[in-house]
Amino acid sequence: MRSPSFNPPHRILMGPGPSDAHPRVLKAMASPLIGHLDPHFVGMMDEVKSMVQKTFLTKNHLTFVVSAPGSAGMETCLVNLLEPGDECIICINGVFGGRMVNIAERCGATVHKVETPWGEVTKVTQIKKALKQCPKPKLVALVHAETSTGARQPLEKISDLVHEAGSLLMVDAVTSYCGVPLKVDEWKIDAIYSGTQKCLSAPPGLSPVSFSKRAVKVLENRKTPVQSWFLDLSLVKNYWAGAKRTYHHTAPVSSVYALHEALSIVLEEGLENRWKRHQDVHKYLKKNLEEMGFEFIVKPANRLPNLNAVQLPKGIKDEAKLRRQLLDEFNIEVGGGLGAFAGKIWRIGIMGESCTSNHVNALVGALKQIL
Amino acid sequence: MRSPSFNPPHRILMGPGPSDAHPRVLKAMASPLIGHLDPHFVGMMDEVKSMVQKTFLTKNHLTFVVSAPGSAGMETCLVNLLEPGDECIICINGVFGGRMVNIAERCGATVHKVETPWGEVTKVTQIKKALKQCPKPKLVALVHAETSTGARQPLEKISDLVHEAGSLLMVDAVTSYCGVPLKVDEWKIDAIYSGTQKCLSAPPGLSPVSFSKRAVKVLENRKTPVQSWFLDLSLVKNYWAGAKRTYHHTAPVSSVYALHEALSIVLEEGLENRWKRHQDVHKYLKKNLEEMGFEFIVKPANRLPNLNAVQLPKGIKDEAKLRRQLLDEFNIEVGGGLGAFAGKIWRIGIMGESCTSNHVNALVGALKQIL
Repeated sequence: MRSPSFNPPHRILMGPGPSDAHPRVLKAMASPLIGHLDPHFVGMMDEVKSMVQKTFLTKNHLTFVVSAPGSAGMETCLVNLLEPGDECIICINGVFGGRMVNIAERCGATVHKVETPWGEVTKVTQIKKALKQCPKPKLVALVHAETSTGARQPLEKISDLVHEAGSLLMVDAVTSYCGVPLKVDEWKIDAIYSGTQKCLSAPPGLSPVSFSKRAVKVLENRKTPVQSWFLDLSLVKNYWAGAKRTYHHTAPVSSVYALHEALSIVLEEGLENRWKRHQDVHKYLKKNLEEMGFEFIVKPANRLPNLNAVQLPKGIKDEAKLRRQLLDEFNIEVGGGLGAFAGKIWRIGIMGESCTSNHVNALVGALKQIL
Repeated sequence: MRSPSFNPPHRILMGPGPSDAHPRVLKAMASPLIGHLDPHFVGMMDEVKSMVQKTFLTKNHLTFVVSAPGSAGMETCLVNLLEPGDECIICINGVFGGRMVNIAERCGATVHKVETPWGEVTKVTQIKKALKQCPKPKLVALVHAETSTGARQPLEKISDLVHEAGSLLMVDAVTSYCGVPLKVDEWKIDAIYSGTQKCLSAPPGLSPVSFSKRAVKVLENRKTPVQSWFLDLSLVKNYWAGAKRTYHHTAPVSSVYALHEALSIVLEEGLENRWKRHQDVHKYLKKNLEEMGFEFIVKPANRLPNLNAVQLPKGIKDEAKLRRQLLDEFNIEVGGGLGAFAGKIWRIGIMGESCTSNHVNALVGALKQIL
């Protein structure tokens, strides 16, 4: 008895992720498996680590890849840095700040929330005020690129305040990594996590992370065990960074192949060229969307180029129906709104391999045909 | 600037996993990505769930796939079923029982350990004794197939005792799933997790899990939040089993493609045929290994066919050197010992696609050439 294989439709991915993967990356996924302790695999892991360092613009020794999606990267940072009774400040201006609060509370930490309306970014004055109420938090966490709203959070001034307070700066870079400027060492980010399926254009399933020396010192001085065994850095680091490569869990071999290829493609293009490409294609998309009556919800200064959150032209009542039509008739995926924005906005991703004029032309052409 | 792609050597995988993947599975990994909320993906997830039910031999509604390797499946079961202050009984006869204890303690549970020498299995009388000391544990956990020792744990009689005590039976089936008889409903297993890279012969990175109605009742009656957000079943189940498929995290799309194909291959072969194949090839391997002076460390009644833990022929001093020679000169991977068995034994896996006479002949021929 033969059962039918699953043959996915050929989509054009312009939602909040996954983005289209390069054929080289897909080909890498199909390479035969080797063992996760094979010397060839271990050598390749070293190359991945080095490329993650280069793309994060960091020299951090504790830089590696969590064997699970971006949300597990978020949890890795929080469960390792926080202990019961710790105080932290978490900034919320969308879904993912809220998720950080949820996880930090499960760590037994006291969370001081800095809330900003969705679509806006946290202001320096808000951080100052929060640091008056909680003068020495263990960490201050922000989302660099809020995937739910398309807002880009400036980090440099806030970083100075956080470090003056003797705290760690933790950053969610899931949607910004490899798409917009992100400088881990220069901006003194102490803990950062990302995902593979956004501007890196690899399949979803892994989370590149990096920790500064300051963060490592905090990890080394923990008084209680990390509540997760799977994400406990004191164990995982012996596999990714230890001299002996001690077995911890079985690494997702094929996904690491794909990540290696995707990182190579990013470095071949060059980070700055890649940032510029996202900005250029964004301008072209913006012009077209605005001509059709779409309105950006984030003001220009804080607008992400790669994740475009827009209100639909007046007169369109059923956004879900229109998205479904784009998918069914044109094979184009765009994202709907999350949480407070559900049913109200679209999120149009132009990330990594999905960031080309051809993608924009396909979307704009299809929309003109439908509307 | 072009950077060299990673081209893995073409290995013959006969270690404790990953095993060789079928070309159909590798091809599935290379399929273009689609969104994790795409109706085609959601439909495919339903098929995966149904095939996981069929291969676990269960009708459990709460059957799905954790987006991370087997160890995260272990953690999923424990963090969801245990709360601080709970008592549980965990049986240890190798590395993975010990890992369960480690995780259960991080959950704040009081663990009653039932320890058995490595290579042996937990006896019914040991469980009886443990249940006298701790008459109503929340759960009793055992490893069905101890990957570190090659021992197969009989479960049926223990299951009766556990349920008479009103407790849940939790089972690690990472290495047994799709290789040896495993009957979730018939054996009244309440919580089970496995991996994809053993007898299923898919790439590592996912963990199929299943929970009985009894376990679901325990989940629903929790008094405290699950300590992990990423693994919290009350959230994950809305993506895998909810009518609305609420976004939780981005599923590892390509790995789920591969799992779909690997499960199809298992069901095409038929579970019973597959179990028989593992038994038959094991007999052939055993005969050959014993002729060369290898000795099995597990007695026949409890010996796994698919994971063969053996002491090397007398006179071989440096097992690591010999393994390295097999890898470098013949491209054959076998596993060394873990923990107490490091440097002392080999673990020869004949799992899934790696379970053929050709694999055995390649290994045996290579060993004869070297020795």
